[in-house]
Amino acid sequence: MTTPAAGNRQIRLAARPSGLPVPTDWESTVEPVPEPADGHLLVEVSHISLDPAMRGWMNDVRSYIPPVRIGEVMRAGAIGRVLASRHPDFAVGDHVFGPFGVQEYAESDGAGVRRVDLGIAPPETHLGVLGATGLTAYFGLFDIGRPQPGQTVLVSGAAGAVGSVVGQLARLTGCRAVGIAGGPDKCRTLTEEFGFDAAVDYKNDDVPAALRKHCPDGVDVFFDNVGGTILDVALTRLARGARVIVCGAISQYNNTEPGPGPSNYLSLLVNRASMTGMVVFDYADRYPEATAELAGWLADGRLRAREDVVEGDVTSFPETLLRLFTGANTGKLVLRIR
Amino acid sequence: MTTPAAGNRQIRLAARPSGLPVPTDWESTVEPVPEPADGHLLVEVSHISLDPAMRGWMNDVRSYIPPVRIGEVMRAGAIGRVLASRHPDFAVGDHVFGPFGVQEYAESDGAGVRRVDLGIAPPETHLGVLGATGLTAYFGLFDIGRPQPGQTVLVSGAAGAVGSVVGQLARLTGCRAVGIAGGPDKCRTLTEEFGFDAAVDYKNDDVPAALRKHCPDGVDVFFDNVGGTILDVALTRLARGARVIVCGAISQYNNTEPGPGPSNYLSLLVNRASMTGMVVFDYADRYPEATAELAGWLADGRLRAREDVVEGDVTSFPETLLRLFTGANTGKLVLRIR
Repeated sequence: MTTPAAGNRQIRLAARPSGLPVPTDWESTVEPVPEPADGHLLVEVSHISLDPAMRGWMNDVRSYIPPVRIGEVMRAGAIGRVLASRHPDFAVGDHVFGPFGVQEYAESDGAGVRRVDLGIAPPETHLGVLGATGLTAYFGLFDIGRPQPGQTVLVSGAAGAVGSVVGQLARLTGCRAVGIAGGPDKCRTLTEEFGFDAAVDYKNDDVPAALRKHCPDGVDVFFDNVGGTILDVALTRLARGARVIVCGAISQYNNTEPGPGPSNYLSLLVNRASMTGMVVFDYADRYPEATAELAGWLADGRLRAREDVVEGDVTSFPETLLRLFTGANTGKLVLRIR
Repeated sequence: MTTPAAGNRQIRLAARPSGLPVPTDWESTVEPVPEPADGHLLVEVSHISLDPAMRGWMNDVRSYIPPVRIGEVMRAGAIGRVLASRHPDFAVGDHVFGPFGVQEYAESDGAGVRRVDLGIAPPETHLGVLGATGLTAYFGLFDIGRPQPGQTVLVSGAAGAVGSVVGQLARLTGCRAVGIAGGPDKCRTLTEEFGFDAAVDYKNDDVPAALRKHCPDGVDVFFDNVGGTILDVALTRLARGARVIVCGAISQYNNTEPGPGPSNYLSLLVNRASMTGMVVFDYADRYPEATAELAGWLADGRLRAREDVVEGDVTSFPETLLRLFTGANTGKLVLRIR
C-alpha cells in the first residue's frame, strides 16, 4: 500500500448551524492516513453523496439517527476504492459504497459497506438511482404510497434526486405523474427528461390553480420532500383515500424556529387520507430486491439517472452542500474528489 | 293516527355561523305534522343526538357530507317511535333510529332508519355507545389505531362521547389508556368511572410534562378529537410506528379563520408514524358486528355508557349544542324531547 504524503483531509462539524450552514460551522483537518486494523479495510474515497437529510444530522435533536457530534467527521455515504484490506469480504481494488464520511480516506470495519458494480453504472449512479436516493423513492412510493394504475401521483422537490425517481416510478406504474419544482428549467426537465405528465413551477405559477388544472381528479399519492406551504396546498387537493408520504421537508431544514404546520391537515379527515413518515433505513433487508429492480429499469432505459456532479476536493463539501438549499441542483448531487 | 294540534316544531339553519353559533343562526318553524307517503313512515322524535361534527355541517365547505342548506331542518341523528307506517319494515310503535333532524315529527322513506331494542339499553345509549359515537370509537381505534396489548393509547377529548369509549376499548384490549380532558372533575371521571390509567388536565397541567410522565414509553396510538395545540404536543410523544387517528378537531370548529397546523408533524417522519382521517359512515356495512360486540361489553359491564341528557323541546337545541364547545358536557350529549 502506498499512502500519499499529504495525509487524509477531512471535513468535520465545528459548530451547530443556525439556519443555513456557514463556513465557520466546518473545520478542515488533516490526519495521517490510517492503517486498517485487523478485520478492517482502508478506502480511498472518490464520490461523496450530498443529501438534504445531512442538514438534519447537524442539529442536536432526537431524530431517526443520532446527530453528528461536534468535532466529528461529517457523516456521508460515499464510494471509493479499497486500498488495503484485512477484511475477508473485500479485496484491494474493489469499488465499495459505505458510510465513509467527508474525508479522503476511510478506515472501516465493513459495517454498512458493500461492493458496487461499476459495470452496470458509474459511481454517481450508485449513489443516486441505485443508492439510498433510489431506494427512498422506491419504498416510499410503492410501500407507503401504494399507487394504482390510473391514479395521480404528485411529487414535490420533483427535480431533486428522490423526486425525479418517484415521478418516473409513478409513470412505470401507469400513474399520472405531476411534479412541483422551482423555475421553468427544472419544470422542462421534469416533462422532457423524466417523463412527468405535468410540472408546476412553484416560483412562478399559482400553485393551487395549477394543481386544480393538472390534478383534476385530485391527488391519490403525494410524495412530499419539501413541507411548508407546498404541503399545505397539496393537502387541499387530496382524493378520497389519498396517501401522503412524508419523506422530507427541505423548505424547513434551515429554519431557525419551527415553521407553521400544515393548517389544512383536516383534509385527511374529510378525504379519509393518511400521512405517513418514512425512513429508508427501515427497508435495509429489502435493498437487494429493490436495487435489482431499479438496475433493470435503468438498463432497459425505462428509468433515467441524472446526477449533478461537482468536481473538487473534500474542502468543496461545505459550499457544495448549499446547492441543495438554494435550488441550484437538479438530480442527485455528488462531489467527485479529484 | 292522532296528530297533536300544535303541529311539528322544527329548528332550521337560518344563517352560516361565524365562530360559535348564535341565536340568529337558527329559526324555529311550525309546520303541519305530515302524513306518511306510500312506502314511508312517520316518527315522533324523542331523543336527539348532539355531536361536535354538527358544527362542521353548518359551514358551506366541501367535506365528507354536504353542508346543511340555509332554511333546511338541522341535520341530526335521533330516536323516536313510529306513529304511522306505510313502510313494510316498520310498524306503529317501533322504536327507531334515523336521520330525523331537529324536529318533533319526521316523515321518512326509511333510508338510514333502523329499529332499536330498548330492552338492551335506553334510547340515549343507542345514540351513544351503541350509536355513531361508539362506532366511531370502535372503528377508529381498532381499524386505524390497531392497538396491541401493552401499548399506550392516548385520547384527547377523553371525557367526551367518543373519547370515553375509546379509552375503555383501549383498556379492554390490554392497553394503557391515557386521557386528556379539561378540568379536575372530568379527569377524575376518566380514571374513576371509565378506567383510564391516567388523565391529563389540559386546563391546569403542564401538558408536555404530563405526557412525558404518563406515557413514558411514548404514544403508540393517539386518538385525536381535539386538534390544535393538543395535537401538536401529542406529536412530540409518538413512539416508533405510532398511529394517529384524526377523528375530529373540536378546538378548531368555531375558528373564524384556519388555525395553525401541527408544526411538529415531522415527528411522523422521525418515528415512521402515520396520521389518518376517519369518518364512521365508511364502515356502515360493519355496523351490525360492531354494535353487537359493543352491546355485549355493555351487557357484561366491561363498557360503561355515560350520557349527558338535557330535557327540553326542540327549541332547546341551539343552546344545548353549545355545551359541546364550552366543555360543559361529559359523555354523550342528548336532547330528550319532553
